[in-house]
Amino acid sequence: MINRIQHIGVAVRSLEAAIPYYRDVLGLPLLGIEEVAEQKIRAAVFRVGESTIEVIESTSPDGPVGKFVERNGEGIHHLCFQVDDAASALAAAKAKGARLIDETPRLGVHGMKIGFLHPKSTFGVLTEFAQPGEEGHE
Amino acid sequence: MINRIQHIGVAVRSLEAAIPYYRDVLGLPLLGIEEVAEQKIRAAVFRVGESTIEVIESTSPDGPVGKFVERNGEGIHHLCFQVDDAASALAAAKAKGARLIDETPRLGVHGMKIGFLHPKSTFGVLTEFAQPGEEGHE
Repeated sequence: MINRIQHIGVAVRSLEAAIPYYRDVLGLPLLGIEEVAEQKIRAAVFRVGESTIEVIESTSPDGPVGKFVERNGEGIHHLCFQVDDAASALAAAKAKGARLIDETPRLGVHGMKIGFLHPKSTFGVLTEFAQPGEEGHE
Repeated sequence: MINRIQHIGVAVRSLEAAIPYYRDVLGLPLLGIEEVAEQKIRAAVFRVGESTIEVIESTSPDGPVGKFVERNGEGIHHLCFQVDDAASALAAAKAKGARLIDETPRLGVHGMKIGFLHPKSTFGVLTEFAQPGEEGHE
């Protein structure tokens, strides 16, 4: 069960360059900057309504976001839906024919349980499900 | 002043092929299908929380979305923020250094006033502002 857009992930070459655009030109509140070593990224998280925009910089050229930017340039990288239960949402999508990157949820930031659908079965949109962690962080 | 994500525009080759994914696999309510002759598109609009996903098919290979799919394949095409006042939002973005596609708002579907920022000044994200029409449609 999808409740809302949890976040949109936007890949940029430089967080330092992109933050002023989101913060000052668009006027979105900057909630914080997070580093996810496992995914080789740093992300600036901006609030917009019930969703966020995660502006993502690769900390290494060989990380998944570094490769994306190398191939496609800067732009929207993925779309994340908030779900009640990531395990059952992944299983239900698979049962209906979606191809999964993550067969079962893994741990994301803030204790979220996350999993990705493969863009080959989502008409080109890298799609993530995220279940809020027990700490209740969005 | 940005209130929320109004919609995410997703470009696909075939609405007929993509609708079952959004409706049945993701389980999002289909609000309707709209044709915008001026932009040479047909769009299926799905509700997700306070936002929508507009799944867009080009009705002509030489339309902007047809060219996008030809060049980039299927995927996320643009991001639209709901604003109180599109004219002042465009002017404010320009004053802060953004490059505009639309210097002043034009009329979108449902009486919305819309305008686009150029992806060259938005770190690769084609960005739209939309002001709700007087009929109050989202």
